[in-house]
Amino acid sequence: MGPGSVDNEGAMKALVLENKRIRVDEVPRPEPAEGEVLIRVLKAGVCRTDLELAGGYMDFKGIPGHELVGSVEDAPDKEWIGRRVVGEINLSCGRCRFCGRGLTKHCPYRSVLGIANKDGAFAEYLTLPLSNCHIVVDGISDHEAVFAEPLAAALDVMEKIDIDEEDEVCVQGDGKLGLLTALVLNRRFPCVCCIGKHERNLDLLRKQGIKTVFRDESPELKFDVVVEATGREEGLADALERVVPDGRIVLKSTIRGLAGLDISRVVVDEIRLFGSRCGAFPPALRLLEKKSVPVAEMVDAEFPLERGLEALSLARKPGALKVLLIP
Amino acid sequence: MGPGSVDNEGAMKALVLENKRIRVDEVPRPEPAEGEVLIRVLKAGVCRTDLELAGGYMDFKGIPGHELVGSVEDAPDKEWIGRRVVGEINLSCGRCRFCGRGLTKHCPYRSVLGIANKDGAFAEYLTLPLSNCHIVVDGISDHEAVFAEPLAAALDVMEKIDIDEEDEVCVQGDGKLGLLTALVLNRRFPCVCCIGKHERNLDLLRKQGIKTVFRDESPELKFDVVVEATGREEGLADALERVVPDGRIVLKSTIRGLAGLDISRVVVDEIRLFGSRCGAFPPALRLLEKKSVPVAEMVDAEFPLERGLEALSLARKPGALKVLLIP
Repeated sequence: MGPGSVDNEGAMKALVLENKRIRVDEVPRPEPAEGEVLIRVLKAGVCRTDLELAGGYMDFKGIPGHELVGSVEDAPDKEWIGRRVVGEINLSCGRCRFCGRGLTKHCPYRSVLGIANKDGAFAEYLTLPLSNCHIVVDGISDHEAVFAEPLAAALDVMEKIDIDEEDEVCVQGDGKLGLLTALVLNRRFPCVCCIGKHERNLDLLRKQGIKTVFRDESPELKFDVVVEATGREEGLADALERVVPDGRIVLKSTIRGLAGLDISRVVVDEIRLFGSRCGAFPPALRLLEKKSVPVAEMVDAEFPLERGLEALSLARKPGALKVLLIP
Repeated sequence: MGPGSVDNEGAMKALVLENKRIRVDEVPRPEPAEGEVLIRVLKAGVCRTDLELAGGYMDFKGIPGHELVGSVEDAPDKEWIGRRVVGEINLSCGRCRFCGRGLTKHCPYRSVLGIANKDGAFAEYLTLPLSNCHIVVDGISDHEAVFAEPLAAALDVMEKIDIDEEDEVCVQGDGKLGLLTALVLNRRFPCVCCIGKHERNLDLLRKQGIKTVFRDESPELKFDVVVEATGREEGLADALERVVPDGRIVLKSTIRGLAGLDISRVVVDEIRLFGSRCGAFPPALRLLEKKSVPVAEMVDAEFPLERGLEALSLARKPGALKVLLIP
């Protein structure tokens, strides 16, 4: 559909991804399915995954964007209309074996907001099941609320493994997810260190009292737990280099392609690896309400949707922090 | 040292590995260090790791062999003399952080019998710390006792992860370690399946009531737990293909080189991977005493040490089961 082909009130602006190309376009406003709410997007955040999608990851076609805060325009339960919400991104079937065990994010029939078979948040409007929505209390600004999704993902590290007080914990990567992960781990554990390569980003952590190491500066450092959030293939080998025997590695970055794994090292040293993706929203919202994590400092720029391509270019720059889109 | 250069009673026959070459040689009989016992080897088993060592793995130089049953010839505690023993293979420092936590197999200062800095069991005699030795009761034959080490390694899978009764469990690989692992898992869990490619080996499992699948026969089968014991690099990719989301993979095979890991799949499906190496001997000895695992059926051949090279060739054949050396 070309620009201008829908020009009535049923149309909306959006970024549309097709064949590895993103364009600003006018598209029909989505209609809520049964049980869904219609959300007017207030702010949307650009995530590394969006950039991967643009490169062909998941073969996604449609409107990307899965970090958002919005205002409910229509809902099956009218109480919700006008409320500010954030939304969980996995739309599950509710009936399969995984859903039955509460593992809705692993439902094999799921669609994923802005990632798989569901148009996302780089648009004026989107729809989501009511059950995916969480109300944002007044104490949380739009600017902060848009971090609910990535903050929940960062918190999920602690759902995947039990970390001990004495554990030396390392976060590899000082991108957005690396910083959020270091910040949430630092609230609970005394020995958290972030290894990165962007002075500005590491400085943000140092201001919070977190130890930082410039990459390649201390190759001899070893850790009980390594969280890999560099988004680079070599990150796995680096993590394996840095973890002690019997240690644990949590993988956070979705990376296309294969990374080389030294199986012998994993077996001989009995290393444990854990994949971690999305997390629960309520604890993330509580942290935002308490201002426990300085997310506002992590916003690099805001762009109107029309300048979405510019926004994605900026987000792609090494060391870029959060770029927001405002429809 | 050439053959014949030591021909007094202080000499012994051994297989010696040097520069990726194994030879039958005469070498000095080892002297027990403080706290060590002198063991006359009764039987030694050839493990896949020995074949890897011969190919250059670990850069090991000396006498390989780490599966054995022997008779104590000399000991600090004279009560031990004449007793039949099996021996744990990790010789740890007893003082480091890992030893302090009971993780002696991860002591960074360890040597490993027949694998790293310690001459092993393909010889008439070896020495081991008394604390590494376990007495073999009369009800266990030499033939069976030599399986204590690999059986302990198989049992370690259950130390690494908690398996549920309802879990569908798959063992990839019908070599020696794969069979032992399937056999011990089958004693505890109802849904164990072994995927292999050697009819004779799979048949051994079927006789014990274990479900087997010929490799490539049922690619659509999915499992909650996959134990990778094929000893092949592709085993990791196969395991990732077969495991369900939120599922677990236990890696048992020490393989030289890098295997390709689809990180995105690990992260998105939140797969967990666990390296597993050696296990505890007492539970393995109890299984042997109760004749719970038909290890005797797994012996393919016995060779005198002089025919060690022949023994290794046979052990290298695809699908070969246990080959024993008798000094």
